[in-house]
Amino acid sequence: MTTTYRLALLGFGVVGQGLAEILRDKGAQLEREHGARFVITAIADPLKGSLSAPEGLDPQELLDRVGREGNLRGHAAACDWDALHTIDHAAADVVVEMTYTDLKTGEPATTHFRRALQRGCHIVTTNKGPIALHYRELAELAAQRNLIIGYEGTVMSGTPSLRMATTALRGCAISAISGILNGTTNYILTQMEAGATYEAALQEAQRLGYAEADPTGDVEGHDAAAKVAILANVLMGASIGPADVEREGITRLTPQDIESARSENSRWKLIGSVSREGERVSASVRPQRMPLTHPLASVSGPINAVTYTTDMLGDVTLVGPGAGKLATGFAVLSDLLDIHARRRVIRL
Amino acid sequence: MTTTYRLALLGFGVVGQGLAEILRDKGAQLEREHGARFVITAIADPLKGSLSAPEGLDPQELLDRVGREGNLRGHAAACDWDALHTIDHAAADVVVEMTYTDLKTGEPATTHFRRALQRGCHIVTTNKGPIALHYRELAELAAQRNLIIGYEGTVMSGTPSLRMATTALRGCAISAISGILNGTTNYILTQMEAGATYEAALQEAQRLGYAEADPTGDVEGHDAAAKVAILANVLMGASIGPADVEREGITRLTPQDIESARSENSRWKLIGSVSREGERVSASVRPQRMPLTHPLASVSGPINAVTYTTDMLGDVTLVGPGAGKLATGFAVLSDLLDIHARRRVIRL
Repeated sequence: MTTTYRLALLGFGVVGQGLAEILRDKGAQLEREHGARFVITAIADPLKGSLSAPEGLDPQELLDRVGREGNLRGHAAACDWDALHTIDHAAADVVVEMTYTDLKTGEPATTHFRRALQRGCHIVTTNKGPIALHYRELAELAAQRNLIIGYEGTVMSGTPSLRMATTALRGCAISAISGILNGTTNYILTQMEAGATYEAALQEAQRLGYAEADPTGDVEGHDAAAKVAILANVLMGASIGPADVEREGITRLTPQDIESARSENSRWKLIGSVSREGERVSASVRPQRMPLTHPLASVSGPINAVTYTTDMLGDVTLVGPGAGKLATGFAVLSDLLDIHARRRVIRL
Repeated sequence: MTTTYRLALLGFGVVGQGLAEILRDKGAQLEREHGARFVITAIADPLKGSLSAPEGLDPQELLDRVGREGNLRGHAAACDWDALHTIDHAAADVVVEMTYTDLKTGEPATTHFRRALQRGCHIVTTNKGPIALHYRELAELAAQRNLIIGYEGTVMSGTPSLRMATTALRGCAISAISGILNGTTNYILTQMEAGATYEAALQEAQRLGYAEADPTGDVEGHDAAAKVAILANVLMGASIGPADVEREGITRLTPQDIESARSENSRWKLIGSVSREGERVSASVRPQRMPLTHPLASVSGPINAVTYTTDMLGDVTLVGPGAGKLATGFAVLSDLLDIHARRRVIRL
């Protein structure tokens, strides 16, 4: 027995295209092995154009067209729907929110969330904004309506930092979290250890596409702070936003700092932390000298990692990619499969 | 709404006592947060004695009595049931198999498995024998009867190596697995790097309780080979036993080997590996020189780790304890909570 899920994609950039590749390559297998069929029935992208096709869109055709023309406007299913109209009118069971991230307001994604939940759609997102800023409100709204919100991709892309904690570690109490949650800064620090100056390392990161033209969000720790807020809210019952996270970036680290750490068998890492003492949860992002014996010390390049300190297992560390087209596309698939796995429990 | 699960424990050694501690300390919370109540209704231990109490046994009283008298024979619920009689007659929904491991025959645990499934009980085990040797038969037997077998604790104790792969990585194809799956040998190698001879490191491991009086099972790689077979069978669809795993232990490594690896920025680790090429799955345990940049290289002391090479995420590594009273007790709890989570799907 196959269950079909109709997906409305808000945004068809790197992540949306990664998801389309995965559905193209794995669609038949997912149907065979999991009994789940995921069909893209609508796309709303302010730059690439909008599509609506209740019978479903062919992922290969979408990818070909974007590759060839840079947009979807010439597609037979093209329409003039914006994101809100798409949420309200698409033939969709799940809205996949992949619009741009705003860590100050969480918009427009948060409005998309509220509207999709009102309409009775599940939501999957890779957008940190709504989860870092409005997690509790959105989770309650979803629960009231027996809907699921999936947000695995907001912390370490497809590396299952959240799902591991909520499923595989279920029953453990997590008292502290430490993580390398930003690949750009970790890449820069790794390059500095190999002898590069901060400026040269940043330029190389920009050349490789790890860092943006304005690197502030990464190097000043804003991106990591949003992820710390998500970890604190989802896994430790906190209600904090990115602004509540004590924050220091990597821009003040000098080659001397790097060398001095090395001479003491340690290594600078930009560490996002959450810890709980009693009812109080505190959160920070700051460069820390990690002893080489710590699992986070050996995480190099654009890789991410998180260590959960638990009551029954002590420290458990997960290391994996923190970005990438397929990795983030997998985060979406992972949330879709979770919705599928829970369908009988939530009586879809 | 609370669902009660009555547990018959086969074996009340370190793991059984760890589980009793966890149920004592977390019982109320598990009921509150998960709606699951786990009650020990029977124990069969050939050394400590057997108990049967359909109304449930108090974990604290069990722990007190074992701590005080070394056995359970004076308990009001004492009886003369052996393991098989307990499986057949205890008031139980789940049989928790924690008897000793035999990697040649898988007995007596495999017989316990078949008997418990025939009777209609779910099974949770920390015993590598039946899963390394008879996984496919037992999984099919369970599936036919709509029963669950849980075996998280057979690979990295409570560190969720299996559950992470089957739930949090669901949808990913795993093409290769590499792991540090034996804490004793990893401790010995770590000590040798700090300058100890093999003999001194082994003695220290024995003193700390990491290694047994006869260390063969650990140092010759038999324990790791069984875990490799479990990973291959459960996660890669293989049908192999420990004897099919190419195996070399750590006993031939010399201080010169250790030093030579160090001078080339690498480190010896006893690595269990599984890889797939087409339909062919090959498995091995052998000392390997891991470059210091590999996440497994920095795993030191009695810690375990596993790296999954996947199609969508590349390498994902999980690091955590591979043994311990609470860690292995948690493995059992984790499987029990999984049975609980799946109860509506399997129509318990």
